[in-house]
Amino acid sequence: MDFSKIKSFLESCDNVTILTHKSPDGDTLGAGFALCRYLRLQGKKANVVNSDPLPERYSFLYDWYEPMKFVEKTVIAVDIADTKLLGHNLEEYAEEGRIDLCIDHHVSNKYYAKYTYVNASASAACQIIYELFRYIGASIDKTIAKCLYTGIATDTGCFKYENTTSAAHIAVSELMKYNIDYASINRNMFDVKSRARIRIEQAVTNNMEFFFDDRCAVIVITAQMMEESGMEPAEFDGLASIPLQVEGVEMGITIKQRHENVWKLSVRTTDNIDASKFCQKFGGGGHIRAAGCELTGTLDEVKEIIRNNASELFGAN
Amino acid sequence: MDFSKIKSFLESCDNVTILTHKSPDGDTLGAGFALCRYLRLQGKKANVVNSDPLPERYSFLYDWYEPMKFVEKTVIAVDIADTKLLGHNLEEYAEEGRIDLCIDHHVSNKYYAKYTYVNASASAACQIIYELFRYIGASIDKTIAKCLYTGIATDTGCFKYENTTSAAHIAVSELMKYNIDYASINRNMFDVKSRARIRIEQAVTNNMEFFFDDRCAVIVITAQMMEESGMEPAEFDGLASIPLQVEGVEMGITIKQRHENVWKLSVRTTDNIDASKFCQKFGGGGHIRAAGCELTGTLDEVKEIIRNNASELFGAN
Repeated sequence: MDFSKIKSFLESCDNVTILTHKSPDGDTLGAGFALCRYLRLQGKKANVVNSDPLPERYSFLYDWYEPMKFVEKTVIAVDIADTKLLGHNLEEYAEEGRIDLCIDHHVSNKYYAKYTYVNASASAACQIIYELFRYIGASIDKTIAKCLYTGIATDTGCFKYENTTSAAHIAVSELMKYNIDYASINRNMFDVKSRARIRIEQAVTNNMEFFFDDRCAVIVITAQMMEESGMEPAEFDGLASIPLQVEGVEMGITIKQRHENVWKLSVRTTDNIDASKFCQKFGGGGHIRAAGCELTGTLDEVKEIIRNNASELFGAN
Repeated sequence: MDFSKIKSFLESCDNVTILTHKSPDGDTLGAGFALCRYLRLQGKKANVVNSDPLPERYSFLYDWYEPMKFVEKTVIAVDIADTKLLGHNLEEYAEEGRIDLCIDHHVSNKYYAKYTYVNASASAACQIIYELFRYIGASIDKTIAKCLYTGIATDTGCFKYENTTSAAHIAVSELMKYNIDYASINRNMFDVKSRARIRIEQAVTNNMEFFFDDRCAVIVITAQMMEESGMEPAEFDGLASIPLQVEGVEMGITIKQRHENVWKLSVRTTDNIDASKFCQKFGGGGHIRAAGCELTGTLDEVKEIIRNNASELFGAN
């Protein structure tokens, strides 16, 4: 599908349900609510749905939104590569083959919808929606601009990561013209931390261990730490970036307890080391610089397994 | 002065010394080395000078650079608002009135040079240099692109802060096309921390105190902490952002010991509070969201002064 066909599709659709992925992030919500608002501004009925409760953290994207009542005629999925990501409460959309259009930026997209538009070189689903709106000549407002800015900023780590494209910078250079308070958005998305989060960061930094001439750093998050923190489980995901922030570290490993003697490893690496290859040894996988797997045993046994299996990565130098 | 005159100036100049400001940052060095390299590519002689040793942290901007020998004919200052910022080893340039051209983005520029170009709405001096090169039609290379990208990224906190302009995003969208490793630059500029830095962050976070219903957070850096850390004095500046990162905090104060009973306050605020006004009470000043001043007394006395004088800021609510 191309933009010209999506344009016709959007012109003729009505009573639209927009699906966003479970454990929603700024990109899926930004894309969903931007599209919803655009359709409503065109006089159409549209809702955004999610399997999970919408995080308070992103409430500035949907503080204008009230669900509408209508008999659904059209279903559009945004930023959802795989129907597995719909989540429990939305899985019937996949089971019943009801998804008409999917707009996504993941190379791993499973083409589960009737029509699919994937641009895997886009930084974010919101970048695609921006470019689509531009193609259509859509008149967007400050709220839509805020949604799209947030999606692009959050999916690129505020334009920091490798997936940040030249086109993403061009998109936000236009979106900023709608007088959005990007500095405050960025502060809330990237700088502000709850006191619980600060305490847990302190705790994991205190227990950080270094191996292989300090080129490998390991932190541990036990079930007890998670329980005592009062934080949402999803909030712990961000901690996996901590070990790799230490100067000189090329491989950062976060060991998170799942159950008694069951541990989830999140592995992050710099250019030189293939995190995915390492995790594949244990039945896991992922990307070259970010991958994961599961190990069983006591914490000491797990650390021993890591050390034994990572030694070849550092041994040659 | 406008771009057309700077173009003529650059065409006719030779044997150029480019001044950068003391305690150099990514923007002054990025602008200086980008301009130097451009002039050299034009067959001219040019050097970059600084009052201080060039930080290792920015060595990727000047790893190609060797000073040239020549009898200086032209002096250009970049990103230097005031001759006070030249530093001890370069102050003769100001004293002898030898600065021909100043290119800067600070509204506070003192117009000390023979010719001055200031664009106070530019995010960075490097944004101006980029736009100048574009105006000239300069053919730039990957190294120049890397210098300019770094200056814009570092002066905007990786496009996070209020001073990030639409034009800054446009500039980097072009600079990225030179195949620069922006993800690695950003990782080194914004994510990587020395172990000394991590230790000191732990220490100040541990001693953080909260006042006024947790809306004001205060951290303390004692002379002893600085001495024991093994860090460069300049490295401590970044710590001032820590208190304001705590959720709900509207005023973050960093108390840094200068001497026995002499303390430097760095005050950071969100939208609602005027940091500059607060610091003016004690003979200091700055911007609305970032200001500084000096207080004398024991640490407890200083905290007491802060509490007494900040109470009116929080009392009304």
